[in-house]
Amino acid sequence: MASQVNPPRGMRDMLPAEHRRRAHVAGIIRDAFSDHGFEEIETPVVELAERLHAGLGGDNEKLAFGIQRRGLTVDDLRAAASPAELADLGLRFDLTVPLARYYATNRAELPSVVRTIQIAPVWRAERPQAGRYRQFVQCDIDVVGEPGIQAELELVAATGDALARLGLGDAFLRVNDRRILHAMLEAAGVPDAAREGALITIDKLDKIGRDGVAGELDAAGIDGAAVLARIDAVAAGDWSSLPDEATEALRTLLAVDAADLGVRLELDPSLVRGMGYYTGVIMEIAHPAVPYSIGGGGRYDGMVGRFLGTDVPAAGISFGFERLIDLVDVVADEGAETVGILHDRDLPPATLVAVKRRVVASGRAVRVARRTKNVARVLDGLAASGATHMLALRADADPAGDLDVQPLRAPESTTLRTPESTTLRASESTT
Amino acid sequence: MASQVNPPRGMRDMLPAEHRRRAHVAGIIRDAFSDHGFEEIETPVVELAERLHAGLGGDNEKLAFGIQRRGLTVDDLRAAASPAELADLGLRFDLTVPLARYYATNRAELPSVVRTIQIAPVWRAERPQAGRYRQFVQCDIDVVGEPGIQAELELVAATGDALARLGLGDAFLRVNDRRILHAMLEAAGVPDAAREGALITIDKLDKIGRDGVAGELDAAGIDGAAVLARIDAVAAGDWSSLPDEATEALRTLLAVDAADLGVRLELDPSLVRGMGYYTGVIMEIAHPAVPYSIGGGGRYDGMVGRFLGTDVPAAGISFGFERLIDLVDVVADEGAETVGILHDRDLPPATLVAVKRRVVASGRAVRVARRTKNVARVLDGLAASGATHMLALRADADPAGDLDVQPLRAPESTTLRTPESTTLRASESTT
Repeated sequence: MASQVNPPRGMRDMLPAEHRRRAHVAGIIRDAFSDHGFEEIETPVVELAERLHAGLGGDNEKLAFGIQRRGLTVDDLRAAASPAELADLGLRFDLTVPLARYYATNRAELPSVVRTIQIAPVWRAERPQAGRYRQFVQCDIDVVGEPGIQAELELVAATGDALARLGLGDAFLRVNDRRILHAMLEAAGVPDAAREGALITIDKLDKIGRDGVAGELDAAGIDGAAVLARIDAVAAGDWSSLPDEATEALRTLLAVDAADLGVRLELDPSLVRGMGYYTGVIMEIAHPAVPYSIGGGGRYDGMVGRFLGTDVPAAGISFGFERLIDLVDVVADEGAETVGILHDRDLPPATLVAVKRRVVASGRAVRVARRTKNVARVLDGLAASGATHMLALRADADPAGDLDVQPLRAPESTTLRTPESTTLRASESTT
Repeated sequence: MASQVNPPRGMRDMLPAEHRRRAHVAGIIRDAFSDHGFEEIETPVVELAERLHAGLGGDNEKLAFGIQRRGLTVDDLRAAASPAELADLGLRFDLTVPLARYYATNRAELPSVVRTIQIAPVWRAERPQAGRYRQFVQCDIDVVGEPGIQAELELVAATGDALARLGLGDAFLRVNDRRILHAMLEAAGVPDAAREGALITIDKLDKIGRDGVAGELDAAGIDGAAVLARIDAVAAGDWSSLPDEATEALRTLLAVDAADLGVRLELDPSLVRGMGYYTGVIMEIAHPAVPYSIGGGGRYDGMVGRFLGTDVPAAGISFGFERLIDLVDVVADEGAETVGILHDRDLPPATLVAVKRRVVASGRAVRVARRTKNVARVLDGLAASGATHMLALRADADPAGDLDVQPLRAPESTTLRTPESTTLRASESTT
């Protein structure tokens, strides 16, 4: 063994400082969503393979990790017509398919309109590359059961508040509507059967540019120039070629006071969003500091019905947590005073545990480190793990005596407050 | 589709109320551990199959879910010598194997003694039965790098505090030491090679009783009566037949003031703990209200070395979260006032979103429900989701006017405080 011991490819350990930062950011998002009336739920990370591969996950389905059937024999391997036959379960690749399954499973116990929060990991067997992981966290809010634009408005307002609390007030939402996309294609003479293909091409506008899109559409027998002209006209405010039913939702959304939504909306008639399951408004979270989107979502009215049998309207927004975490600059305030105990190697363990208990009972948290020759380095470690104060325990320390708690110089990156020294009196005994 | 849509066998959805309760209990445990100087880390839920099957997981290894190799072909199925060959990854079945791997991976960045918290799900393909799940949460604390009894003392003190904060002050720890077990077996004349088997038999004392254990030992050619006599003698305080090095750790542990540990220790020389990797002190968390243990742990000095190449001392305690959650009776105090908005069906969505924003900006959280004929039921639902107050919004409500926030009668099980009615003034506008 030895030498290279790593987590599986594309997956990461979170050391304490990183975990603390992530938990703090997730907590801010959770609190914002919760304040807006969304409630956190949990589903198993594992779903039946047939649900993961029901055609609702788009390209992500191909990236699902399959879980091997239990109790397989070599004969089973010989008899199987495909590897997929031997995987009856899989790791979820998003939080939307599990939500649809959750709603179908628990329908009888749920209110007619459900507002959910999911902050949880998903897995995709992607080719690992910078910033892409095979286990990563998504933060989703969804409204299931509400057919009207109220759902999108509530999603946008909660998103706006979460972004503001994260210090990302410059973020904005690009919005469009699948019905507008279809109406523009219809007006440009694109036949019904060619439209999904045309949308996939339009979705590449960022990557291949206008000429690229026009060329790819032309090659597919679609008048690329006509399509781009329609998009330009709608972007410029000319909605005359679009039927009312295609534009009604977006008109209402864009008419709402931005102050009430807490975030700016920007119409982008070329916005497609990859997933084929969207049926109405689609949204993408953008921020001037980064060229990629940090989240997105939309209305997906047909999806829950795939599991339930009857159609249920639904809409949601998903934050890409791994992209957010790089953008935000927040410091976790630990709240309670934290005392780093620096103890001699030969301090009796019973003394240490008695002192720890006194400090914790006094309402403070404790970090423990053993004294080494390089005391400065040990103190840095204590500060990095959140200690604001220090308490030196020599080998002959009296566990019941006065304890001299000194302020600890915080490392530069985590200065939170100016701590004061205190004495934990012998008389402050605990029981 | 339709009819039966369930999560995978043995796995569960957590609806909002259950999720809230679990998150609250996990938070209490996390805070107690953290106050005692342990720091939360995270590892991927997936580990390399060769690590999961390195012989460190005991019987649990057999219960690991295997993840199918990506890109398999039918030819691969035909050529494979065993199903295991086709699963290169697996879901972790405990948090100890991943911790050992984590320590080996991140050794260079970690302090010499590491105190970790892990509160996270694990998976085992057990035959589902009442109270047994295939995805369940464990809460582990571990001290890696500390060879002395200080590690066990810190673990016990943190455990005692967590139990006390959970209202489980009646819980106590059964303790023993693997070295005492081996010394007793040696004194009873059990040869070295037969000892692990004898321990497995002794471990069944609860299930098959003294006669059963004696019979099973006799059948294995071991003097069952002699073994039981040794156990009885040690339980009665006669440690004379045991060498000092076998008893030293436990003597120190039992000599510490129970007030400093925050939990009572009880010597049980028949305690074995199933896992073969334990090397020293072993512990089990017991509570008078239930016949089963609610957690346990011990010292496992050889384990980290399996991945790292050099031996590293380690000890840990694991709480069985699913067993704890049934025992504890705590109510989550939501903290912020929560206003349930009861709105007419034809309330303009823009009005709803404006009012929601005003309520959230005033420092309160919001829950939303649409008025139906059965208003009492809707109000019950709002209260169950945490609302302490209500605000009725008629279709013609003025989004900028005074808002009459009324106390909401809490459902019996969740009475937290006596709310008062307030008015959110039109002048309290937000921007």
